[in-house]
Amino acid sequence: MSEQAPVTELPELRIDHLREARTGLAEAVYGPGKTPDQCAAAVAELLAGPGDGPVLLTRADPAQAAAATAAAPGAAVASYDEGQELRTLLWRARERREHAGSVLVLTAGTGDLPVAREAAAVVEAYGHEVALVADVGVAGLHRVLGQQDRLAAADVVVVVAGMEGALASVVGGLTRAPVVAVPTSTGYGAGLEGVTALLGMLASCSPGITAVGIDNGFGAGCAAVRFLGARVDA
Amino acid sequence: MSEQAPVTELPELRIDHLREARTGLAEAVYGPGKTPDQCAAAVAELLAGPGDGPVLLTRADPAQAAAATAAAPGAAVASYDEGQELRTLLWRARERREHAGSVLVLTAGTGDLPVAREAAAVVEAYGHEVALVADVGVAGLHRVLGQQDRLAAADVVVVVAGMEGALASVVGGLTRAPVVAVPTSTGYGAGLEGVTALLGMLASCSPGITAVGIDNGFGAGCAAVRFLGARVDA
Amino acid sequence: MSEQAPVTELPELRIDHLREARTGLAEAVYGPGKTPDQCAAAVAELLAGPGDGPVLLTRADPAQAAAATAAAPGAAVASYDEGQELRTLLWRARERREHAGSVLVLTAGTGDLPVAREAAAVVEAYGHEVALVADVGVAGLHRVLGQQDRLAAADVVVVVAGMEGALASVVGGLTRAPVVAVPTSTGYGAGLEGVTALLGMLASCSPGITAVGIDNGFGAGCAAVRFLGARVDA
Amino acid sequence: MSEQAPVTELPELRIDHLREARTGLAEAVYGPGKTPDQCAAAVAELLAGPGDGPVLLTRADPAQAAAATAAAPGAAVASYDEGQELRTLLWRARERREHAGSVLVLTAGTGDLPVAREAAAVVEAYGHEVALVADVGVAGLHRVLGQQDRLAAADVVVVVAGMEGALASVVGGLTRAPVVAVPTSTGYGAGLEGVTALLGMLASCSPGITAVGIDNGFGAGCAAVRFLGARVDA
Amino acid sequence: MSEQAPVTELPELRIDHLREARTGLAEAVYGPGKTPDQCAAAVAELLAGPGDGPVLLTRADPAQAAAATAAAPGAAVASYDEGQELRTLLWRARERREHAGSVLVLTAGTGDLPVAREAAAVVEAYGHEVALVADVGVAGLHRVLGQQDRLAAADVVVVVAGMEGALASVVGGLTRAPVVAVPTSTGYGAGLEGVTALLGMLASCSPGITAVGIDNGFGAGCAAVRFLGARVDA
Amino acid sequence: MSEQAPVTELPELRIDHLREARTGLAEAVYGPGKTPDQCAAAVAELLAGPGDGPVLLTRADPAQAAAATAAAPGAAVASYDEGQELRTLLWRARERREHAGSVLVLTAGTGDLPVAREAAAVVEAYGHEVALVADVGVAGLHRVLGQQDRLAAADVVVVVAGMEGALASVVGGLTRAPVVAVPTSTGYGAGLEGVTALLGMLASCSPGITAVGIDNGFGAGCAAVRFLGARVDA
Amino acid sequence: MSEQAPVTELPELRIDHLREARTGLAEAVYGPGKTPDQCAAAVAELLAGPGDGPVLLTRADPAQAAAATAAAPGAAVASYDEGQELRTLLWRARERREHAGSVLVLTAGTGDLPVAREAAAVVEAYGHEVALVADVGVAGLHRVLGQQDRLAAADVVVVVAGMEGALASVVGGLTRAPVVAVPTSTGYGAGLEGVTALLGMLASCSPGITAVGIDNGFGAGCAAVRFLGARVDA
Amino acid sequence: MSEQAPVTELPELRIDHLREARTGLAEAVYGPGKTPDQCAAAVAELLAGPGDGPVLLTRADPAQAAAATAAAPGAAVASYDEGQELRTLLWRARERREHAGSVLVLTAGTGDLPVAREAAAVVEAYGHEVALVADVGVAGLHRVLGQQDRLAAADVVVVVAGMEGALASVVGGLTRAPVVAVPTSTGYGAGLEGVTALLGMLASCSPGITAVGIDNGFGAGCAAVRFLGARVDA
Repeated sequence: MSEQAPVTELPELRIDHLREARTGLAEAVYGPGKTPDQCAAAVAELLAGPGDGPVLLTRADPAQAAAATAAAPGAAVASYDEGQELRTLLWRARERREHAGSVLVLTAGTGDLPVAREAAAVVEAYGHEVALVADVGVAGLHRVLGQQDRLAAADVVVVVAGMEGALASVVGGLTRAPVVAVPTSTGYGAGLEGVTALLGMLASCSPGITAVGIDNGFGAGCAAVRFLGARVDA
Repeated sequence: MSEQAPVTELPELRIDHLREARTGLAEAVYGPGKTPDQCAAAVAELLAGPGDGPVLLTRADPAQAAAATAAAPGAAVASYDEGQELRTLLWRARERREHAGSVLVLTAGTGDLPVAREAAAVVEAYGHEVALVADVGVAGLHRVLGQQDRLAAADVVVVVAGMEGALASVVGGLTRAPVVAVPTSTGYGAGLEGVTALLGMLASCSPGITAVGIDNGFGAGCAAVRFLGARVDA
Repeated sequence: MSEQAPVTELPELRIDHLREARTGLAEAVYGPGKTPDQCAAAVAELLAGPGDGPVLLTRADPAQAAAATAAAPGAAVASYDEGQELRTLLWRARERREHAGSVLVLTAGTGDLPVAREAAAVVEAYGHEVALVADVGVAGLHRVLGQQDRLAAADVVVVVAGMEGALASVVGGLTRAPVVAVPTSTGYGAGLEGVTALLGMLASCSPGITAVGIDNGFGAGCAAVRFLGARVDA
Repeated sequence: MSEQAPVTELPELRIDHLREARTGLAEAVYGPGKTPDQCAAAVAELLAGPGDGPVLLTRADPAQAAAATAAAPGAAVASYDEGQELRTLLWRARERREHAGSVLVLTAGTGDLPVAREAAAVVEAYGHEVALVADVGVAGLHRVLGQQDRLAAADVVVVVAGMEGALASVVGGLTRAPVVAVPTSTGYGAGLEGVTALLGMLASCSPGITAVGIDNGFGAGCAAVRFLGARVDA
Repeated sequence: MSEQAPVTELPELRIDHLREARTGLAEAVYGPGKTPDQCAAAVAELLAGPGDGPVLLTRADPAQAAAATAAAPGAAVASYDEGQELRTLLWRARERREHAGSVLVLTAGTGDLPVAREAAAVVEAYGHEVALVADVGVAGLHRVLGQQDRLAAADVVVVVAGMEGALASVVGGLTRAPVVAVPTSTGYGAGLEGVTALLGMLASCSPGITAVGIDNGFGAGCAAVRFLGARVDA
Repeated sequence: MSEQAPVTELPELRIDHLREARTGLAEAVYGPGKTPDQCAAAVAELLAGPGDGPVLLTRADPAQAAAATAAAPGAAVASYDEGQELRTLLWRARERREHAGSVLVLTAGTGDLPVAREAAAVVEAYGHEVALVADVGVAGLHRVLGQQDRLAAADVVVVVAGMEGALASVVGGLTRAPVVAVPTSTGYGAGLEGVTALLGMLASCSPGITAVGIDNGFGAGCAAVRFLGARVDA
Repeated sequence: MSEQAPVTELPELRIDHLREARTGLAEAVYGPGKTPDQCAAAVAELLAGPGDGPVLLTRADPAQAAAATAAAPGAAVASYDEGQELRTLLWRARERREHAGSVLVLTAGTGDLPVAREAAAVVEAYGHEVALVADVGVAGLHRVLGQQDRLAAADVVVVVAGMEGALASVVGGLTRAPVVAVPTSTGYGAGLEGVTALLGMLASCSPGITAVGIDNGFGAGCAAVRFLGARVDA
Repeated sequence: MSEQAPVTELPELRIDHLREARTGLAEAVYGPGKTPDQCAAAVAELLAGPGDGPVLLTRADPAQAAAATAAAPGAAVASYDEGQELRTLLWRARERREHAGSVLVLTAGTGDLPVAREAAAVVEAYGHEVALVADVGVAGLHRVLGQQDRLAAADVVVVVAGMEGALASVVGGLTRAPVVAVPTSTGYGAGLEGVTALLGMLASCSPGITAVGIDNGFGAGCAAVRFLGARVDA
């Protein structure tokens, strides 16, 4: 029994080269579930395609990162999750725009940092400004109350929080900006790996908060880019 | 076919007359699922028994209340839920104790009031002081920040909140007192009829908060009585 | 036994008059769980307060609506849910802003209309433009493909969908605008009263979509107002 | 304490040799939870039995595969999941039928390929034609719209998708063929390891879609064989 | 406050007249969540459109049925659920096809009949043959074993079952035909309103079974029409 | 539009007359989901069949009960649930057996009585002895400790409890008899309508307890009859 | 920082030496979550105590097994789970009773064997007879129909099944004996690690089936011992 | 590709030095999800800050513990979980208070000990007395009944239990003290990793019990410190 290829015909990659033109966001390569070769091929094809925007490989493990950077040198490590040894690789970051928007990313705890950094990396890759302020959970309210100037100045606020996710509700009551809430899977058992924070953010008593999926820093960054694009282009 | 009694032998009531002696809290009669006659019989037997403490009939609908007060006159309506037309009836309230403890009940919204009042009614029935302050949800932080004197003076704080239940976390960071959190089933769909608030309270980033079941104002009041009993008797 | 008032002290309303100044969105009165008198009192106090912005009473049943309009005449019915006989009442709508933003609200089916109209009502109350296009579910793709001009012109797109909620993913791939997805509880059993659509929107393969809670048209409208405020004031 | 055999009597294998005669599908050996020896014995007995149809060992890990091929040489690796190091082994594939049916297997992403290949392997084992087209998720609609000829020509379409599974709804609106949807466990947290896609497929707005369990490529392949058998034999 | 129309622009119906041409199944009108007027308008527009196929109004309550038949006379009651007072109305049934397929609908209990009849009604509306055999649950195996001739002759088998849904697994082991399983919400508490049967059907030990959503007789009927279309047109 | 019968062929009842011979328990008619006519027909056919054992109609509402007793006079009301107005009707009860077994049914609270009585009714219908002792919940341990003589004498113990269901664990530690636990849907929110009690009984620290579904008094009675049959016939 | 013992006082073991006298089943030592030393100490104390019945250490990993057999030689490996490398160790098995009861353990698949063997080991340890017949799942009904003699002769039947657990329903319709159903965590995704089988067994259409928790072979064995004890001692 | 730091600005630690002054409990460092360096930095900053109370690092793995003790020598191992190799490290324990409160920690089984010790460690760190009594589960009631003197003397009782968590209900009926229940994730499948015990504790039939999250010994210890602080300071 040799490890021969499966007998079905080989599928081709079907890169969506026009996605940035349609949506303002180029197709990104999500690492988990792909082989290192698939990651490398997708990155290479995106770089060789008609677009000129950022190319991102997200949640890449060491083998995926190695294969991709071998096939396509010049990547920056845009964010890194030390605990899970996953990283965001970035090729062709956009230069800082002249009328760039400004995003404030807040985290409730230090354990939320990897997700927050993934969000920030996407925003920066598209040429906008980001400030990341960690560890302002509501058990010590003075910490978030001390960020009121930044909250007033931000075009978009991203709140990254696990456990009960109460930071999103408090922030929603302190700012006029759009608030994108990212539940994280940090915390004890009753956090249910992020479900509690997600539900709390969706049921928030502060109106006008929206949420993305658990640990989905990438999605929050993309949402922020959508908002800023609408704002900047107006 | 006549509506004859079931052919099995009739069960007797088995009132736990010594519960107050053992636990500081007399057996109470929980209305839902009981017939009006069962409610009336249980109340009457408790009043006729060896104890002299408060007798409570909780969540009584109009028929149950009518049967119980017919069998045992003299009840006070200790709390009332206008929406569900349920009430707490009270016989033999304890007089205010000389060294009574003091409980502060906070609610996030006005929709949490019926549950909060059930909790307050239990505390008062056992002779302790209660202050009930409603509508201090975290979307407007100044409301709870304006209660800091009461938070400092309370022996126990009961936080009643639906939706995401974030008030419990914020209060937990502002007081040294024991905090008993009561999730309520108020709010939109993602509140999951109280499950979101419950999970949020259990996963709170403020340490030392404890919770009771959804809408369980009675249980929170009982917990407060336990705490105050321990404090006062010391 | 007379229906006397509960023996605990009466809580006061704690209207958050400065919420519009802080967040761009005035406090609104959510009907469910409140008595008609509580609704009327809250509306009246908001109208008498220091703000001059829109006052909304949401999901009001006939008794709540009658009490509120008796206490505060001049309300418009901003949206109406025929099936549940609930409505949004509006006092002091903002005039159309000179540089108003433009929101496109799409629904997958006609059963999603009540939620969509609640979202649209909020946006209009704050002086922005809304277009509502119903019944463009993905089982007939030409319907949403026929909206590409509107998708390109909108500053924010709100997608209201029940069942599997796939419309959000398809729209996310067709527009640069921020997409706020609202899951609804319409549809057969496996829709789980909106949970399926919610999960699908949060797990969407189109990046940068954000979601609000199930049937939360009010929240989606508020989110759109936040986005437009950020855009317009820029 | 020696690792003696358990004291209960030894159970025998109870191979269902007549299953292909009854159902058109021979009993297959599902690897997980079986010892390598049990896998090998089951394969050997199936090959020695009265049937002459395909013998499949599914989701075999390296030890199971080695034991089975030692006991029964001549297996082909019909599909392979590089990530989990599991494979489908096949003995006695049927020759291509003269009036074979044609199955189109579509995947939303490349991470869905292992499940898709398992489905395709079953179809091929029973002598039918399969085309596998990957990476046509709805975030770039032109990809699936580009498959309309194949969709029109297929006798059965199998849609393999994780995340929100919206591809099934879109495909259901584009083809007359039976659509078998396979949810996969790929994707971020809110995909809930396939539950979101499963629910979305069951609640699809496109009528007449049916689903199999999460990651159950084998089951989808078997369903396709049932459909084709009915068609071909007619 | 008059019940004025909402202030947003009125959405139009967006009937998908070409759906039967694309998918073999015309758009149907699902009653729940629609007003009687919306039901009547949708039916009338479908009948006035370019198609000539069956028009179905499903799960119509008495008011919806009355409005629809006033606007479009000549409907047949294709199925009726006495318990919920809902019915399937049918206009323009297809004549029996010359080479019609044959569907066998089995139910585990008599409580499953309304769902089974909805499935059968769809199949008949499209001109195929249906036999409906009720009450063959597995607690008395001889009942389903007595249907072996019908199982051998059917082109498609639809199994409708609540509680634990075991009938689907047993039928799957007795027939070569495609098996479409419909979980129903009948039965005691642990049936979880159909979730147990759904999960059981998806996890069935009989390979090649597919499922539709809970109580979704309409969907099962549509799936059968897809299968038969593929078979008959071949 | 007349309410004509559905156009599909009429299914016949398929009574399992030999079930008592096979399993010791005759087929019973479960009311919910059946029309009054279906109930009456099923009862009549069972009485006219070859068996001579008990015929039970369970959870019958007033209309079902009236139809059944009109068609088949002579029924006894074997148990009655006043809250839900449902009852168990019984025809042809078995006489008390000479070597009858003895069942002890315990309930944690009075709200559990309807379920307990349904269980007891089944046991009595088959000619065995039952004692029903209510209201021995573990918050007052002396109540269950006072039943030790009955626990020692019983051949089977049925424990009926809602809320957390702890009574089953305590009873399991006090008796040698088989313990059948019945979770009930009584109690506050965190009881989750019986799910909490069910899970607690399945996870009990007392070994050898078995459970039936939520509120399934009928099933517990049947289980007891199976146990006693095995014992008595030995 | 040395690994000093915790500063709290050391808890003592609190072996329940009289459990066999009270319940017919001696306390057993459940391995998971205990240290090897705790396992060894518990076994040694049980053997040194006043009882003379079987001593069981269940689900012991290699380290726990080694520690226990070092402290207490002479253990037999009563059952063994090769996949998880866990075993049941047994000291002081009871001799076969003269009037021993007879238990039939059936499994749906070979993957259910470890759980089935754990159940069988308990029954044998207490001196009763066991026959274990594997792989009689309902996809090939002839396999379980071939066991009708054993089903008629057994005093108790234990059904061990994963996936949808339908075997329990089928067996319940074929035997008069008490049926104890054990759901297992074997099978594909929709089996939900045993939850599907558990729910199916609790919702079974065959009356009088009872269930234990997922993979709880030990509990099923104990339940059988309770039943047999009642039968034999009668 | 070098492992360069992420391109976003570095967040600072935001230690809440005044938390003990506000709440009586200093900020603690929760290990999971933090890097060893983050743990060490947080501990060091807390020790260098204005407070003089206990500094706790909880659930530290070996690498975190090593980094923290390297940065801040002098830690005691306050509790240790041998199974998960996690520990609580403690710096600056408070001396035993003159009027210290007394906490009784009970566990149902020995597997609950690590959680119980974490709770006890927190109480001792703040200068109160703790007695820990293990293995008093309700399957052998005499064990907890033997603790009645300690139950009467305790100021707070912490009940740590997995499986069905029934010990909390029984203890609640035996003591006047506040009862804090801690569900643990020990036990078989139906314990659902602590969810069953949690739900059981929240739905307890013994009034006045409160709960913390699953395995949250730290939270229970903090709750006890809050209670004792209120008691002692009175």
